[in-house]
Amino acid sequence: MTPSQTPTLPEAVQTLLTALTTEHQFEDNQIKTDAESLEHWGKDWTKHFAPAPTAIVFPKTTEQVQSIVKLANAHGIVLTPSGGRTGLSAGAVAADGEIVVSFDKMNRIGEFYPADRLVTIEAGVVTEQLQQFAEDKDLYYPVDFASAGSSQMGGNIGTNAGGIKVIRYGMTRQWVMGLTVVTGKGDILHLNRGMIKNATGYDLRQLFIGAEGTLGFVTEAQIKLERQPQDLTVMVLGMDEFSDVMNVLSAFQAKIDLTAFEFFDSVAVEKLMAHGQVQEPFESRTKFYTLLEFEAPYEPIMDKAMEVFESCMESGWVVDGVMSQSIAQAEELWKLREYISETISVFTPYKNDVSVLISHVPDFINDIDAIVSSNYPDFEVCWFGHIGDGNLHLNILKPDNMSKDDFFAECQVVNKHVFDTVKKYGGSVSAEHGVGMTKKPYLHYSRSETEIEYLKAIKKVFDPNNIMNRGKIFDA
Amino acid sequence: MTPSQTPTLPEAVQTLLTALTTEHQFEDNQIKTDAESLEHWGKDWTKHFAPAPTAIVFPKTTEQVQSIVKLANAHGIVLTPSGGRTGLSAGAVAADGEIVVSFDKMNRIGEFYPADRLVTIEAGVVTEQLQQFAEDKDLYYPVDFASAGSSQMGGNIGTNAGGIKVIRYGMTRQWVMGLTVVTGKGDILHLNRGMIKNATGYDLRQLFIGAEGTLGFVTEAQIKLERQPQDLTVMVLGMDEFSDVMNVLSAFQAKIDLTAFEFFDSVAVEKLMAHGQVQEPFESRTKFYTLLEFEAPYEPIMDKAMEVFESCMESGWVVDGVMSQSIAQAEELWKLREYISETISVFTPYKNDVSVLISHVPDFINDIDAIVSSNYPDFEVCWFGHIGDGNLHLNILKPDNMSKDDFFAECQVVNKHVFDTVKKYGGSVSAEHGVGMTKKPYLHYSRSETEIEYLKAIKKVFDPNNIMNRGKIFDA
Repeated sequence: MTPSQTPTLPEAVQTLLTALTTEHQFEDNQIKTDAESLEHWGKDWTKHFAPAPTAIVFPKTTEQVQSIVKLANAHGIVLTPSGGRTGLSAGAVAADGEIVVSFDKMNRIGEFYPADRLVTIEAGVVTEQLQQFAEDKDLYYPVDFASAGSSQMGGNIGTNAGGIKVIRYGMTRQWVMGLTVVTGKGDILHLNRGMIKNATGYDLRQLFIGAEGTLGFVTEAQIKLERQPQDLTVMVLGMDEFSDVMNVLSAFQAKIDLTAFEFFDSVAVEKLMAHGQVQEPFESRTKFYTLLEFEAPYEPIMDKAMEVFESCMESGWVVDGVMSQSIAQAEELWKLREYISETISVFTPYKNDVSVLISHVPDFINDIDAIVSSNYPDFEVCWFGHIGDGNLHLNILKPDNMSKDDFFAECQVVNKHVFDTVKKYGGSVSAEHGVGMTKKPYLHYSRSETEIEYLKAIKKVFDPNNIMNRGKIFDA
Repeated sequence: MTPSQTPTLPEAVQTLLTALTTEHQFEDNQIKTDAESLEHWGKDWTKHFAPAPTAIVFPKTTEQVQSIVKLANAHGIVLTPSGGRTGLSAGAVAADGEIVVSFDKMNRIGEFYPADRLVTIEAGVVTEQLQQFAEDKDLYYPVDFASAGSSQMGGNIGTNAGGIKVIRYGMTRQWVMGLTVVTGKGDILHLNRGMIKNATGYDLRQLFIGAEGTLGFVTEAQIKLERQPQDLTVMVLGMDEFSDVMNVLSAFQAKIDLTAFEFFDSVAVEKLMAHGQVQEPFESRTKFYTLLEFEAPYEPIMDKAMEVFESCMESGWVVDGVMSQSIAQAEELWKLREYISETISVFTPYKNDVSVLISHVPDFINDIDAIVSSNYPDFEVCWFGHIGDGNLHLNILKPDNMSKDDFFAECQVVNKHVFDTVKKYGGSVSAEHGVGMTKKPYLHYSRSETEIEYLKAIKKVFDPNNIMNRGKIFDA
């Protein structure tokens, strides 16, 4: 569909789209304004906001992105970046007449430098596509999470995505060795160009990682790859006291290089069993579960892991445990953790993704449980998360007899208590999902007013007209 | 010495110092204005600039640093931060009437969180002090380099220090989980507070890492520690072709997790032997040497290393090699690399610390060698560095028959060629030594003019009066 077929477009938008086709080599299939496309590309996985963009554009090069940004500045049009649209904080929702800039047509994998284990990618490369590329090179891209099949690298960089292997491999930030960005002023910057060591002034690359497209759009990146993990082995352990979860973490970390240390509670397991897709790990249900993973290419590592496991049993910390004997079994055990999100989705969960220091996790969970059980005795709470990073997913499940609207209204009130508790422990109101629009009202629980003033001042430096993903993170 | 004893002080400085003692609890020993102190604290290891500060102040708390910054703004006085003064780019030199803010009295190690392997430190904590603290807790602080005995953590953070273990453990940036800073406007910010995951807007912490104190001063940090390395084993290998150095790197990296991959040339070994402190590693001298290190707690790792070594010999890449059989032997082999700087210092070396992608290292070294040998046949070049990170130390040695002044003047001309070559390969004119004053004229070889404009704009956000380490990195 060409712009001329959509007479209802605002004049400025029409002018911009026409300029793209006449002056900047945009082809017909690089612009969409039909209702179905606006609905599709106007939102992410967040459901609270109705999409309402005016057009979707699909640049193919950094220069085309630059053209869009320059025209948007000239015509006062707001741009929303769009990747795999798997975000959970409405960071990629266009709800106010924006033009959506989709990176779907910038999904090429470019030059590969074997000696550096470094690869250049465009922003629209899907996480799994990069993981597959790495595997083909006998290497590994270690940032992994449930939406890897559709999330795009540009979005991962914009939110500094984390996931299930952070305890060993860190966040997306750690793997981004270079960025090409188009700033809100329309400048193209090539930041750090893949180097490991470069002490030549402020590392602007770091500002764009986690900026959710509010300073500019990432168009290309240089990503470091890692050697493949060897002989990954999985244990699932059951505990009845939360303090023992922490004891087990310390005991294993002292002896074994963990690649994951995940946590879930009996509520999660109850729902999983009701759903019938996975098997109960032990004969008797325990209150808490951890899934831990490590490389065991050498026999002595396995011996050491068994030793730690046995000493945890003797200490009374662990009630029961199971260890994978094959890759298939390891994958089966991982399902216990991976299927939780999908399984509880039928209970209309209200999700919060928070983090505190690992040392503060036990007190934090206690506090939240006490608040919810005393104020909302009808609410069931399901905890899971990446406890080895201090990152907890708090899910409040909707009681059967409560309407969705009433439930969400009540959850907003609970939020205040949750975020007060996050603040009390100096934690984060968004550990890995970003701020977008859903966490914007709560930003001040994690960043001081003075800090937020600096954030706004930095935004002005890169995007003085506030056209880049306006209304996300904070109101500039 | 009290400020009143130094009548020659500029009035504004005198006013500031008086306010510190009368209003901000500074004691007599927290202010120095005697000539010897001005000389001592007014410079770092860089020798090209004469120190000329007006006073040295020694705050004991973040609040005292804030008082100094606020008064400096009010009275238009420039502040220079001072840590261990081991910098090589004049980043901590006060050459123009500044007040030096020394962190010598802020050297306390604070709260330790075992479950997080996290410790709070003040900026004046010496690297070795932190390393020792970690060891006492059966942990490890992995950023290590020759000046660890005197460099302070605040300075390491300000330059994002690297060193000899970057190939495995990354730069200082990777270990800084939180920062307390006083900005140039006099605001105290507590950035990230130790969290692993925190996706709540721009990560300002990252801006201050590597900013050389030009945006504000780091007063405290939360540092992540790591488990101790186990059974470190060292190999030194000799090669006659530079391309084989790269082959050996690839061969080992494919099979072994290296903790170091260092490089030096026969010129370095020749000088080391003349100095007589270390033994020749092999019977015959080779053109190039690498020192590689890895953990070998399990027999099969050692077997694998031997296998790779043998296949490198069979391929003709490696001429000779030696492997440590004990901790003492490993330390002895490390001396080959560690003693180079000291050994060549008698030859008045002109040092450059540059980096390029590892894949570009062979061509880069070829280009530089060709330039120097054709234009400056009398100059001897000694190469060493952290080649596993693409970081090379280029040392041009002064010919005996040339005066120091003539030599340095010639080297300024060579610089132009060196940095043109760095630019050709998209590299960095300062890999890990920072920009300070010595690399300021060459910043544009590694950062575009547009980028530098953004750097200046960010500086204005945090330090509008340009009082924080003025004249370093760029002229604001």
